[in-house]
Amino acid sequence: MSAPTPPSYYGRHIFFCLNERKNGEQSCAQYNAQEGFEHCKVRIKKEGLAGPGQVRVNKAGCLDRCAGGPVAVVYPEAVWYSYLDKADIDEIVDSHLKNGQVVERLLLSPEIGR
Amino acid sequence: MSAPTPPSYYGRHIFFCLNERKNGEQSCAQYNAQEGFEHCKVRIKKEGLAGPGQVRVNKAGCLDRCAGGPVAVVYPEAVWYSYLDKADIDEIVDSHLKNGQVVERLLLSPEIGR
Repeated sequence: MSAPTPPSYYGRHIFFCLNERKNGEQSCAQYNAQEGFEHCKVRIKKEGLAGPGQVRVNKAGCLDRCAGGPVAVVYPEAVWYSYLDKADIDEIVDSHLKNGQVVERLLLSPEIGR
Repeated sequence: MSAPTPPSYYGRHIFFCLNERKNGEQSCAQYNAQEGFEHCKVRIKKEGLAGPGQVRVNKAGCLDRCAGGPVAVVYPEAVWYSYLDKADIDEIVDSHLKNGQVVERLLLSPEIGR
């Protein structure tokens, strides 16, 4: 059978690239990705949004869109963000993760890759 | 505006939980998750399926469905798998990642959480 569209175990699943390159090339870890991840996780817990049927905040390895780093992706919508600081994370939490409104100003351009 | 459904940057994006618990609790790392991840990555490269518009194989932290570990999730379809060995990974690659056919026998039951 072809791929079904089951209800997603997590309503929204956000993955933060935490990759660190040791060879001098640009990587998300250089841009406070860990801090962004942790802030998002804390905010989602505080809002009572964590868990099955709601939101999961996840660490990820290299998402291979390094040129736009630090990056995060929200599934199942496949919406990619480039953020700078905690205020950006707050906006993603309050607008997108909580209310399903994409944060247009933080969207990663489709052509941005490694 | 509400969340749009843009074309997904990766046609299919599979995340392997590689979480390792040091406290004795069950975690995916105990069950050769690293080997499964690496085998999947090699297979996808060999098939010429790696990259934007195609498939991305990713490391992830704890996906919090530890009771079914080792687990992996394919987005944007939000299809969750519990696998055992390289043969299982091969089936996920050949059937789902390459041809969009879900591998029913490896599906993680919806009630399985941490």
